[in-house]
Amino acid sequence: MMKPLEELGQEIKSRRKQLGLSQEKLADKCGFDRTYISMVERGKRNPSLLNLLKIAKGLEASVSELTEVINGANSE
Amino acid sequence: MMKPLEELGQEIKSRRKQLGLSQEKLADKCGFDRTYISMVERGKRNPSLLNLLKIAKGLEASVSELTEVINGANSE
Repeated sequence: MMKPLEELGQEIKSRRKQLGLSQEKLADKCGFDRTYISMVERGKRNPSLLNLLKIAKGLEASVSELTEVINGANSE
Repeated sequence: MMKPLEELGQEIKSRRKQLGLSQEKLADKCGFDRTYISMVERGKRNPSLLNLLKIAKGLEASVSELTEVINGANSE
């Protein structure tokens, strides 16, 4: 079962691809470094709410939409 | 216009009150210190996703539900 940060990362990655954005392009849109986006997409970062808000905006979505996939049953 | 962290804090506070929980009780449920809950409710903390997940669980809600109120138009 995927961990919450991995679920979030997958959701960000799939929405980014749906928009035809590279990690670099999304990073530029959000004001982040490409490596940060890459780490978040691989579930290796635990983003703060304000960072999530920036990523959501870059993906033309809301934080609520991005986090819908997180069921939190396994919250490590 | 309220800032995102303040919007989140208000939402957490109102859900906590609906459940009849004190800050202390919610903090215990989530494994936090009461002062952390107090700071989050006042918009003074920028919680990480995993902390949000714990707070959401303590409020018997999902992160997505908690963050619905955040419109992010003013993302400072």
